[in-house]
Amino acid sequence: MDHKKTVWKPGTVLAPVPVVLVSCGRPGGKPNLITVAWVGTICSEPPMVSISVRPERYSHDIIRDTGEFVINLPGADLAWAVDWCGVVSGRGVDKFAGAKLTPAPAREVHAPIVAECSLAMECRVRQVLTPGSHTVFLAEVVAVQAEAALERPGGRFAFEEAGLLSYAHGHYYVLGRQVGHFGYSVRKKAT
Amino acid sequence: MDHKKTVWKPGTVLAPVPVVLVSCGRPGGKPNLITVAWVGTICSEPPMVSISVRPERYSHDIIRDTGEFVINLPGADLAWAVDWCGVVSGRGVDKFAGAKLTPAPAREVHAPIVAECSLAMECRVRQVLTPGSHTVFLAEVVAVQAEAALERPGGRFAFEEAGLLSYAHGHYYVLGRQVGHFGYSVRKKAT
Repeated sequence: MDHKKTVWKPGTVLAPVPVVLVSCGRPGGKPNLITVAWVGTICSEPPMVSISVRPERYSHDIIRDTGEFVINLPGADLAWAVDWCGVVSGRGVDKFAGAKLTPAPAREVHAPIVAECSLAMECRVRQVLTPGSHTVFLAEVVAVQAEAALERPGGRFAFEEAGLLSYAHGHYYVLGRQVGHFGYSVRKKAT
Repeated sequence: MDHKKTVWKPGTVLAPVPVVLVSCGRPGGKPNLITVAWVGTICSEPPMVSISVRPERYSHDIIRDTGEFVINLPGADLAWAVDWCGVVSGRGVDKFAGAKLTPAPAREVHAPIVAECSLAMECRVRQVLTPGSHTVFLAEVVAVQAEAALERPGGRFAFEEAGLLSYAHGHYYVLGRQVGHFGYSVRKKAT
């Protein structure tokens, strides 16, 4: 490629991004699910994340009012559920039932985790921003639940067996070939 | 899997995440590069992103003082450069030269884009948050530059040919098998 560029109008072209199932619920109420790709880690200590949700979504007011949600990381086996939870509204539908997913108790928040996801990050909202089309919920991770079957000796988690989903410009993918690891560019070669 | 969970202490387990080359520079100064995985889209209209950078990083003050940066999306051919720009400091090193990357003019900001990346998002900082270990720069995308060689008839961009990198728990990956597309769960089957 000659690196010649075309200038586009400003847009959200960041990719590939995570695609996660966010669970939420009012105390005593029916829990809900929403698929979110506008999600990111924003701080390591304390561990913090952001999710962005349009105000017209059913989950928006639940998260705003309760100040809590759970980020569940889905595997490829849940791609259908991830897509469906992103295009259907929870206003008239039980999304857990419709997606054949199981709510399970969180440790630190009232919202349930999704049992079928191998990792769940329980989050408590610390700040809310309203820059435009989306409300940005900045939240602290207050607990993590991980699939026990993927824990390996020495405390390692077999992330590579979780088959986590990625999203790029309208398509869902699993990860492919590994092309390096953190620090490999400066690692001394074995002699 | 039986979905039995182990509770971990709170942490940043979101994955897979994007891994991007952020370019920055003071007017008339040497441009710098920093690799960032704590990056996300936070709003669609206006298009906004967040990047998180530790205050001790050389790029931190450049971005804070200039209020500008560029998010460059690297392909797998740049994995070595991505890793190296994440572990070496720009204080004593010309990172563009060391990573064999070429600065090219941005349209809307003073910071250069990385010519070798197929997509560049020129960003202007709108808000700065300091929740802990990282400074969060919330920024508006003010221009996008895209590799002309990947544009296809009808205005489509061949994202799947860009070989964009993803990062999960210390490892760099390219995308693998596609397992669905947005809306496929509710698309009527052809009869």
